[in-house]
Amino acid sequence: MKVWLNGEILDADTARIAPDDRGLTLGDGLFETLQARAGTPLRLAAHRDRLARGAALLDLPLPELDLHAALCATLAANGLSDGALRLTVTRGSGARGVLPPAAPTPTVLITAGPLPPRDPVRLVLATVTRRNEMSPLSKIKSLNYLDNILARQEAERRGAHDALLLNTQGQIAESSMATLFVVRDGALLTPPVSDGALPGILRAELLQAGAIERSLRPEDVAAADEIFLTTSLGLRAVVAFEEGAHAPGPVAAALSAALAARTGA
Amino acid sequence: MKVWLNGEILDADTARIAPDDRGLTLGDGLFETLQARAGTPLRLAAHRDRLARGAALLDLPLPELDLHAALCATLAANGLSDGALRLTVTRGSGARGVLPPAAPTPTVLITAGPLPPRDPVRLVLATVTRRNEMSPLSKIKSLNYLDNILARQEAERRGAHDALLLNTQGQIAESSMATLFVVRDGALLTPPVSDGALPGILRAELLQAGAIERSLRPEDVAAADEIFLTTSLGLRAVVAFEEGAHAPGPVAAALSAALAARTGA
Repeated sequence: MKVWLNGEILDADTARIAPDDRGLTLGDGLFETLQARAGTPLRLAAHRDRLARGAALLDLPLPELDLHAALCATLAANGLSDGALRLTVTRGSGARGVLPPAAPTPTVLITAGPLPPRDPVRLVLATVTRRNEMSPLSKIKSLNYLDNILARQEAERRGAHDALLLNTQGQIAESSMATLFVVRDGALLTPPVSDGALPGILRAELLQAGAIERSLRPEDVAAADEIFLTTSLGLRAVVAFEEGAHAPGPVAAALSAALAARTGA
Repeated sequence: MKVWLNGEILDADTARIAPDDRGLTLGDGLFETLQARAGTPLRLAAHRDRLARGAALLDLPLPELDLHAALCATLAANGLSDGALRLTVTRGSGARGVLPPAAPTPTVLITAGPLPPRDPVRLVLATVTRRNEMSPLSKIKSLNYLDNILARQEAERRGAHDALLLNTQGQIAESSMATLFVVRDGALLTPPVSDGALPGILRAELLQAGAIERSLRPEDVAAADEIFLTTSLGLRAVVAFEEGAHAPGPVAAALSAALAARTGA
């Protein structure tokens, strides 16, 4: 496997992250996961915008970079045409302490792998932790993923594939790795960003296409006509939420078909 | 500078963290900061206990390790007798995705440096973010430090040294890097863990010595007779909170002297 690290394509086995990289020591950084088709990343402008918003919040200077070329080079170096790309930007090396260096040299890392399967999902409600919608970090894709990891581990222990996270007020924010959508009475609903939903890239497209932001509680999900999850890698139908079975529905099927037609998937 | 990495003392410039280390990609790990005196770490049993509690929460298997020997070796390799040690344990390499590998090989990293000065602190109240006391992560020392970094950056912008973080209910949890103590009417008070205070090692000692857990709001801090912060590296007097000046007081002075007598500082 090959990775792109600070401008070079390297063997993953030899690429070196410094032990004082603040991405490692403090989770001080950002990432994006992108879908690639036919050798090129999809929705690059939207990913770049979200990355820039995260960098502005963290006051992390993004390096000048031909991101499209770097992403395509990483795909090619791994012999991939379709794939999942991950772009990670950390604040780079720093001395001991929480305060970032005044003039950091960020670390930029790109990795690529095959697209994961989009199997139907059995979903539970995480009980172990809550998502903090009162932190601006809930609106950016940062490296602080432990609440999500705790929720995902709980799903695994309970024989499920993913878990919904509540926010501190008891409303649903998102799953451990995806945006939640439900169909109810013909309307396509998703939690608002103010409830702790990460501003997902595919989420934004579905909002433009008519989906509605609505605070959702677990009982709203249980009573939904359809449930599905989206990430930049696509859409997955939810076939169970807690004890209740749910059939993959026509809205998810139509959206999947529309996405496939657009991306050639 | 030398670091201890997975059993070896290495030059920091050549020590290599893999680009797929989950500490880097997801903040999936823990750390401890220890004070060393006369070539040996202080309060090692308490740090080890907290690390073990964090590892249990994350379901992260801690490697068998002579931690005392490793910490002492790192100090010695850096020519340090007194110093600040940092022990970082991540879940090690992992494939793409939030779910940890079933049988991870953790990364264990130890770094050492001089003890930082314990200058008096000008303190503000962070407005940019809140600490999530509803996540069990608030009770462990994880690598997810971005809320703390945001608060510390805000302090810097406002000409202060540190910032207090509120929890989601508006009570004070801690500062961006230390435990808060206030003296009021002769009582030594500190926020309870249920309000989002990290269970600090020195904090536990002061609770044993008579300090009391009490929910605190900003007005309680402003009205306090004394304010100080503690970490494993010691105690720092607070000389300003927001617009108010505070004099270093007799309780902080007495505790500093008692700590110094114990540690030889």
